[in-house]
Amino acid sequence: MGKLRVCINGYGTIGKRVADAVKLQEDMVVEGVVKTRADYSCELIRERGYPLYAASKESLESFKKANVKVEGLAEDLFKKCDVVVDCTPEGIGAKYKPVYDSIGVKAIFQGGEKHELVEASFVAEVNYEKALNKRFIRVVSCNTTGLSRTIGYLDKSFGVRKVRATIIRRGADPSETKKGPINALVPNPAKFPSHHGPDVQTILPHLEVVTGAVVTPTTLMHVHVVNAELKSDASVEDVVKCFSRSKRIRLIDAAKGLDSTAAIIEYARDLGRKRGDLPEVAVWSDSISVIGREVFYMQAVHQESIVVPENIDAVRAVTGSVVEGGKSVMLTNQSLGLI
Amino acid sequence: MGKLRVCINGYGTIGKRVADAVKLQEDMVVEGVVKTRADYSCELIRERGYPLYAASKESLESFKKANVKVEGLAEDLFKKCDVVVDCTPEGIGAKYKPVYDSIGVKAIFQGGEKHELVEASFVAEVNYEKALNKRFIRVVSCNTTGLSRTIGYLDKSFGVRKVRATIIRRGADPSETKKGPINALVPNPAKFPSHHGPDVQTILPHLEVVTGAVVTPTTLMHVHVVNAELKSDASVEDVVKCFSRSKRIRLIDAAKGLDSTAAIIEYARDLGRKRGDLPEVAVWSDSISVIGREVFYMQAVHQESIVVPENIDAVRAVTGSVVEGGKSVMLTNQSLGLI
Repeated sequence: MGKLRVCINGYGTIGKRVADAVKLQEDMVVEGVVKTRADYSCELIRERGYPLYAASKESLESFKKANVKVEGLAEDLFKKCDVVVDCTPEGIGAKYKPVYDSIGVKAIFQGGEKHELVEASFVAEVNYEKALNKRFIRVVSCNTTGLSRTIGYLDKSFGVRKVRATIIRRGADPSETKKGPINALVPNPAKFPSHHGPDVQTILPHLEVVTGAVVTPTTLMHVHVVNAELKSDASVEDVVKCFSRSKRIRLIDAAKGLDSTAAIIEYARDLGRKRGDLPEVAVWSDSISVIGREVFYMQAVHQESIVVPENIDAVRAVTGSVVEGGKSVMLTNQSLGLI
Repeated sequence: MGKLRVCINGYGTIGKRVADAVKLQEDMVVEGVVKTRADYSCELIRERGYPLYAASKESLESFKKANVKVEGLAEDLFKKCDVVVDCTPEGIGAKYKPVYDSIGVKAIFQGGEKHELVEASFVAEVNYEKALNKRFIRVVSCNTTGLSRTIGYLDKSFGVRKVRATIIRRGADPSETKKGPINALVPNPAKFPSHHGPDVQTILPHLEVVTGAVVTPTTLMHVHVVNAELKSDASVEDVVKCFSRSKRIRLIDAAKGLDSTAAIIEYARDLGRKRGDLPEVAVWSDSISVIGREVFYMQAVHQESIVVPENIDAVRAVTGSVVEGGKSVMLTNQSLGLI
């Protein structure tokens, strides 16, 4: 079997990371990336050797004006691929689906699209097999991915009866200068549950999950304060062991200085991670507490990168090129240098 | 009975507000305020007519150097008073206690001091009677006051079995320029429970309360995401009604634009509140949700002012000048223009 031909539609926060991650896979090739507008990243795309395609005829004009060479239109690219990783902004993926459908190319959407759009929502270590050989799946959002990873492992080990989680959101990504807040805490929304609870249920449908979310003036990571009622007894050590078995959960110690989202990102930079990314969900091991059958813990989610390895695994799942989720997770982690 | 002679030891964030609040009470007089150093606030103190006293002989020197007139030393003042409201920094109150004790003046400490230092910890609408005629009591911290007010009302109305709350803290007060974080979320601590849970139990000792806290780069208010398991059934309307009975809980609607801590403080400024304060705990009525016997809600706490009315009520309680808590709360609220 030849390499999987993958293209990336959209070259924003997720798309540019997925492209770089695909390039690192021995079983995949970046067949091309689709962009709407010419900007500084076109030169990076050229340097990295990714064939560039225009999203539409109007885009084509803007590339011509900017003197940027493109290989053709998005649809030309889609026809040459096994899988499109759709990294377009929220809601745009749904508009592209009929295009993918008529061309007959498989597609992986992001968490901005609705669960109803696809055959399965996806978190590699929780439900890889659900995505096997499907045409359309969705990698869930950063917060949902982070929650599903740890709750999924708790559920596998002890059974989970109920989850209550507070999501303390970053306000914007580091390069987003038009978003706030600058000095406020913003219930997002002032309602329970926030969309995250039901979204986790697209991955773990048998669980009761209630979430509330508040936005803060930070750019680095989200923080989750999680309470899970277990079905069986577990000690703090049992929970630590349970999380240690995951290849996408990184246990960190506040006591050793990793005591904030800023310290964690500094650590990712020290590790030499590209862009200072940390695709693992970081769980503060100091925070893991057990009271009766309830476990409490805090975790941090790097919103820009946590879904990147999931997208790589998703490519293998929908093509059926790797049948066993654990094997794909291992291949992806090795290529990206995770944990 | 003459007016209660009250002095305020410490003229920081809380002390200056308590002094202004005491001045507004018909049954109290500001006998004096104690300061350690001469700074811009000495002129404000003079303009407001509060007699100024030096904390120590060293302080006296600094006032002389700055050409600021003082009436004498702190101990001279304490001897003339019925009650000292101790608004000194965390831990300093404990050092003053033997002084108050030897002089025989009653004292009200703030939440930075330990529960063990005093005869009772205090939240006016929850346990006023516990402080009646005591010599030393403590007004609990801003977060504990906010939690105790709403949980106390839920407990009175429905019985509370268990509380789980996430405290999303402001990082510093608006005028504090040396504190962070600037761009990070900081578990504070990365442990359960944070001190707030046990602190609420000094007010509501029969409840199980687990809290976790995270600091954010904001200055305006704390936000609490609260989950309470009730002992009896309650609808959302029942909970709204329950909170409405409190004179220190203000129900607000995110849907009407009060959708962040910034919007709430803007509202307090629009109300013409002195310093833009909001001593009521603000509960987002939109956020009140009931799932089974669990109620979820979000509330905001103005850390600079929430304990101010409590300190006024505490003066009446320890002197026994008003025996019924509800009456003191009414007097205080009217004088401060609350709700």
